[in-house]
Amino acid sequence: MMTKSDVTTMIRAAKREKQISWAEIAAAAGQSEVFVTSACLGMNSLLPEPAAKVAKLLDLPEEAVTVLTEFPTKQFDKLVPTDPCIYRWYEITGVFGEAFKELVQEKFGDGIMSAIDFDMEIEKVEHEKGDRVKVVMSGKFLPYKSW
Amino acid sequence: MMTKSDVTTMIRAAKREKQISWAEIAAAAGQSEVFVTSACLGMNSLLPEPAAKVAKLLDLPEEAVTVLTEFPTKQFDKLVPTDPCIYRWYEITGVFGEAFKELVQEKFGDGIMSAIDFDMEIEKVEHEKGDRVKVVMSGKFLPYKSW
Amino acid sequence: MMTKSDVTTMIRAAKREKQISWAEIAAAAGQSEVFVTSACLGMNSLLPEPAAKVAKLLDLPEEAVTVLTEFPTKQFDKLVPTDPCIYRWYEITGVFGEAFKELVQEKFGDGIMSAIDFDMEIEKVEHEKGDRVKVVMSGKFLPYKSW
Amino acid sequence: MMTKSDVTTMIRAAKREKQISWAEIAAAAGQSEVFVTSACLGMNSLLPEPAAKVAKLLDLPEEAVTVLTEFPTKQFDKLVPTDPCIYRWYEITGVFGEAFKELVQEKFGDGIMSAIDFDMEIEKVEHEKGDRVKVVMSGKFLPYKSW
Amino acid sequence: MMTKSDVTTMIRAAKREKQISWAEIAAAAGQSEVFVTSACLGMNSLLPEPAAKVAKLLDLPEEAVTVLTEFPTKQFDKLVPTDPCIYRWYEITGVFGEAFKELVQEKFGDGIMSAIDFDMEIEKVEHEKGDRVKVVMSGKFLPYKSW
Amino acid sequence: MMTKSDVTTMIRAAKREKQISWAEIAAAAGQSEVFVTSACLGMNSLLPEPAAKVAKLLDLPEEAVTVLTEFPTKQFDKLVPTDPCIYRWYEITGVFGEAFKELVQEKFGDGIMSAIDFDMEIEKVEHEKGDRVKVVMSGKFLPYKSW
Amino acid sequence: MMTKSDVTTMIRAAKREKQISWAEIAAAAGQSEVFVTSACLGMNSLLPEPAAKVAKLLDLPEEAVTVLTEFPTKQFDKLVPTDPCIYRWYEITGVFGEAFKELVQEKFGDGIMSAIDFDMEIEKVEHEKGDRVKVVMSGKFLPYKSW
Amino acid sequence: MMTKSDVTTMIRAAKREKQISWAEIAAAAGQSEVFVTSACLGMNSLLPEPAAKVAKLLDLPEEAVTVLTEFPTKQFDKLVPTDPCIYRWYEITGVFGEAFKELVQEKFGDGIMSAIDFDMEIEKVEHEKGDRVKVVMSGKFLPYKSW
Amino acid sequence: MMTKSDVTTMIRAAKREKQISWAEIAAAAGQSEVFVTSACLGMNSLLPEPAAKVAKLLDLPEEAVTVLTEFPTKQFDKLVPTDPCIYRWYEITGVFGEAFKELVQEKFGDGIMSAIDFDMEIEKVEHEKGDRVKVVMSGKFLPYKSW
Amino acid sequence: MMTKSDVTTMIRAAKREKQISWAEIAAAAGQSEVFVTSACLGMNSLLPEPAAKVAKLLDLPEEAVTVLTEFPTKQFDKLVPTDPCIYRWYEITGVFGEAFKELVQEKFGDGIMSAIDFDMEIEKVEHEKGDRVKVVMSGKFLPYKSW
Repeated sequence: MMTKSDVTTMIRAAKREKQISWAEIAAAAGQSEVFVTSACLGMNSLLPEPAAKVAKLLDLPEEAVTVLTEFPTKQFDKLVPTDPCIYRWYEITGVFGEAFKELVQEKFGDGIMSAIDFDMEIEKVEHEKGDRVKVVMSGKFLPYKSW
Repeated sequence: MMTKSDVTTMIRAAKREKQISWAEIAAAAGQSEVFVTSACLGMNSLLPEPAAKVAKLLDLPEEAVTVLTEFPTKQFDKLVPTDPCIYRWYEITGVFGEAFKELVQEKFGDGIMSAIDFDMEIEKVEHEKGDRVKVVMSGKFLPYKSW
Repeated sequence: MMTKSDVTTMIRAAKREKQISWAEIAAAAGQSEVFVTSACLGMNSLLPEPAAKVAKLLDLPEEAVTVLTEFPTKQFDKLVPTDPCIYRWYEITGVFGEAFKELVQEKFGDGIMSAIDFDMEIEKVEHEKGDRVKVVMSGKFLPYKSW
Repeated sequence: MMTKSDVTTMIRAAKREKQISWAEIAAAAGQSEVFVTSACLGMNSLLPEPAAKVAKLLDLPEEAVTVLTEFPTKQFDKLVPTDPCIYRWYEITGVFGEAFKELVQEKFGDGIMSAIDFDMEIEKVEHEKGDRVKVVMSGKFLPYKSW
Repeated sequence: MMTKSDVTTMIRAAKREKQISWAEIAAAAGQSEVFVTSACLGMNSLLPEPAAKVAKLLDLPEEAVTVLTEFPTKQFDKLVPTDPCIYRWYEITGVFGEAFKELVQEKFGDGIMSAIDFDMEIEKVEHEKGDRVKVVMSGKFLPYKSW
Repeated sequence: MMTKSDVTTMIRAAKREKQISWAEIAAAAGQSEVFVTSACLGMNSLLPEPAAKVAKLLDLPEEAVTVLTEFPTKQFDKLVPTDPCIYRWYEITGVFGEAFKELVQEKFGDGIMSAIDFDMEIEKVEHEKGDRVKVVMSGKFLPYKSW
Repeated sequence: MMTKSDVTTMIRAAKREKQISWAEIAAAAGQSEVFVTSACLGMNSLLPEPAAKVAKLLDLPEEAVTVLTEFPTKQFDKLVPTDPCIYRWYEITGVFGEAFKELVQEKFGDGIMSAIDFDMEIEKVEHEKGDRVKVVMSGKFLPYKSW
Repeated sequence: MMTKSDVTTMIRAAKREKQISWAEIAAAAGQSEVFVTSACLGMNSLLPEPAAKVAKLLDLPEEAVTVLTEFPTKQFDKLVPTDPCIYRWYEITGVFGEAFKELVQEKFGDGIMSAIDFDMEIEKVEHEKGDRVKVVMSGKFLPYKSW
Repeated sequence: MMTKSDVTTMIRAAKREKQISWAEIAAAAGQSEVFVTSACLGMNSLLPEPAAKVAKLLDLPEEAVTVLTEFPTKQFDKLVPTDPCIYRWYEITGVFGEAFKELVQEKFGDGIMSAIDFDMEIEKVEHEKGDRVKVVMSGKFLPYKSW
Repeated sequence: MMTKSDVTTMIRAAKREKQISWAEIAAAAGQSEVFVTSACLGMNSLLPEPAAKVAKLLDLPEEAVTVLTEFPTKQFDKLVPTDPCIYRWYEITGVFGEAFKELVQEKFGDGIMSAIDFDMEIEKVEHEKGDRVKVVMSGKFLPYKSW
């Protein structure tokens, strides 16, 4: 039975062979880079149409389209990520998490920023002292219900 | 000996009594809300001038100015944060971390986004289906050195 | 500086001395038992009016009203709870969590049940073979955003 | 030797191919959705008759009926679940666990809600501000024995 | 506010000073040694009458009687106990746990031995090759509910 | 090379096919149910004669007899067991461990109950309010050596 | 109430002030260095006579004698010790543990070396290439009981 | 590519089939039992000559000689070992580690016992009250460098 | 699909068979030993030219060149490394980490030493009392941004 | 009883008040910065003479000299350090640890770099693209003993 993990391996193999970028895959799907990449890595589900377009671009078998549309179980195995590029986010959570909470709640009241009704973009900003990674995230504010 | 933790308690007590917001403290310091709040929570150091302004606004004792300018040891005790508002960031790291890495490295080459040469803003975006928390982060791209 | 933990201790002391139940405290606050109890234990914030009513019933000092209205940082120290009454919920999460996810997503699409826009009631149901604890929870369905 | 895990894979494959829902499987078994789904996922045992009906609906081999009736060893590998839909239950345990315990014991005396003599239903409640997931759980109250 | 932990310290101090054994305390309470000892250590609650008798024997203050009757939150801090006398039980759980489960379920059906409707006795058995600790535990069998 | 784990799988397969109980296997071996079951699960070694009898009853290959007599490395992978039937023992260790230690040492002096020179029986006790699992364990008392 | 930890602090303070070595304390007690040191650190109990001698040598108060004779709960807080001198033993356990088990069981049969009926001596062996720490441990072999 | 783990499996298979003991393997290698056994288990490297002798005794293939001489990466997977025979060493580290450190440093100065320039012997000592496992370890004292 | 791990195995196999050292591989690549070795172990990426040279020296297949140039996800599985040669670095981090931080920040201001813009050399220094491993690391100082 | 931790607090207080750097303290002691700083932080012991000089410079009480010369128990509480400046070393251990081991053992044979007979210097190297932290460590090579 073909799994999300199998499909991710197929996508990586096709990317290597065909020299296709995530940006091109996202463009084919007609959605954002972050979302489409996360779906190809098995962390989100695609709707049938973009799934079909991704499969066509990469020559994936028919069943892969179905797999891409199935709802994933989101598993991340390391409590503390080790890859430096991912760890830095974990570190930001640790260093700025409390400040983030203080400010969200000062501006909005008692509640949180949703990680579900959520989107994110990543952009390259050129800078003479070194280019910068710009990340824009937006999540719906969810007030704690009182009852 | 007065510690960063003592000063954070003093700041929280003054905020409660004087009804002063983080936004007002940041304005007094003349710096951004995220940075000043994190410094007041003991996770960053202030330069002497903004430290003095914060202390004046909140009527903190003289030694607190020194403490605010000292370089912190950044400690976060929970490997997995439990407060929902902070946990959602941890979850984003887990769910989107690998996609983030793929895209940063596709756009910039092998390397990471710095969490040190880094800034972040939090903004309230009004929206008819529910207001949104907008977060903009920017970190310098650091290429892995090859030698 | 009076903390949420201090107020919880005051509430427990008053309950012991005055023999007041959580049900009576919730009735005084005019809100549900689960919510008010969790707020008294420092896991949620009360609005000023119910906070004042709780404080009055229990003869808490003025500052306690403020503390009860402040937004908590929700901390739970044990990754695996040890008290049997609480552990059983943890066990239910482990045993039925995957089935819960399958059914929520079959009925609603890819998404989750919110733990923020959420309410819960606990009821005693008499039964000849042994009384039963009935728990009714309701959380808003949040679909994953696709972008 | 066919394992529970093998049978779960067979069931998922049959569901994908035949487009059969958990609700239909439960209806075939003549039992509740939560219980039958958890049994198909290897977390509970079915009696021979419903097992046979499930196998017939999904065209499972004969040995699968035996496997479905065997008593499982309930294993959940993550101390802290990572999938957001399951994590939210873990969070509810952390945030409301102590309040739950206080109220159960105030209403019933020293004891717990059983997770064994236990049932659960999940229901979709339509709501103009967003549909809600309603969960009704009922567990026998078990008083601590004193001897 | 006097806590269970305070009362345990008082009991240990009184035992040291008055040279009273757990067996004598249990006899005064009129209940079994294991149960009364666990209650004195803060892991179970006593009914008012035995609590009063324990307090009288040990000259505990009035409030201690109330504390002994309150329902404890059962906390054990170490995931793996380190004291050799306690660790050996943990080891027995690891070495014989699966065999225990197989045999209980072979004899009774799918279910568990309750740790709530449960009792235990400890006895000294003299033996020429070395005395033996005999432990007799009895827990109600709880069948998994099917629904 | 045939391992203990291979032999356990063979035994489970033979049990399923031949419908043989642990009680029958133990009877064939001429030893207690708990011990023989634990040996079949790879947690203890059998002497050659009972090993041969078990193998004969279940039609195991010749090498399996050797494997059953080899001394196991006792591995249990979960620090905290998750199966409810096994977890309850873990919970008993946590809740009653300290009381157990106090009473053993009050009766015997400073030392422990051996988990090596140890035996255990499990018995079904019928009871009108629900049958009970009775467990009798006996371990040699080992006094701490003073030197 | 004076604890084992209090007495350890008293002993360390007296050692510092009076410049008394562990060897001298052991000589006063009339027992081995390892055992007496471990008892002074709260990890073993002394008999009344050696306890009194230790207390006399170090001018400890009367209650300390009682505390030294009480049976400790042996707690070690770190799963992995960090002090290099102690970590090396942990490392030896990891590197040579399996070989140790193989050889003990080859020489004695299925069983273990007791850590309870156990003694240890530490000796300084002068050597031209650098002095060596010699450790001699002896533990009773305990065969696994078969029943 | 043949790994250390493959060679360990070959050695165990040959031992089972040829009924050869670790003592015989060590004698063939001309080195101590503990060292040779640990090397066969993949935790140390042999020099070419003893490796060849071990391979000859056990009829291992040529590449196994090379593998036995390669330098291992010493991995032990469990932070806390579960096999009772190995756990007891872990326990000794916990219970006597601090006393060991005190005495080594009292006798030698600030430093440690090496676990690298280290040897160990295991011996069976017959005793009327039960045979004893005698372990003699010797490690070079390494003083902390001051600079 | 050929992975980094596959290529590392190929490299180790070729090293064993051809008796080629890491120093020779690094020389072929024309880069430093530490960097090239880490890349061969899957922890860094090579540029196409050195990758091709490494592949040629070791007779690796064409796809291996591509794999060596791909950007790795840096995974290290053990929170605490167990191999003694690697553990000692972990220990140095624990023992000297705080002193390192104090001195870096005293010399440079609030910030860190980069582990990305970083290089390291390892050298053998002969010494009459025993040869020494000399490690020279250099990382760019990164000041914390204030904004 | 004055502890190492007390003395570290005294030193930090004196540094803050007198504006004395670690470099000045090391110069007073006549030893290297890394070693003296680590000793002041409680991770190493000083000889009496440098301890007295440090105490004089900082006006520490007499007992502090004794405390500084006592042999510490080196404790580091976090398995994974959280401060970014210290974490980067942990990361280097994870990313380059295996390469470090390969190269040390290729150059020296099977063994390790000592963390005890060890020294380290930290230096500021000015660089037009950003100053660099240079760290030079040297540890004695310790060959594994074969016996």
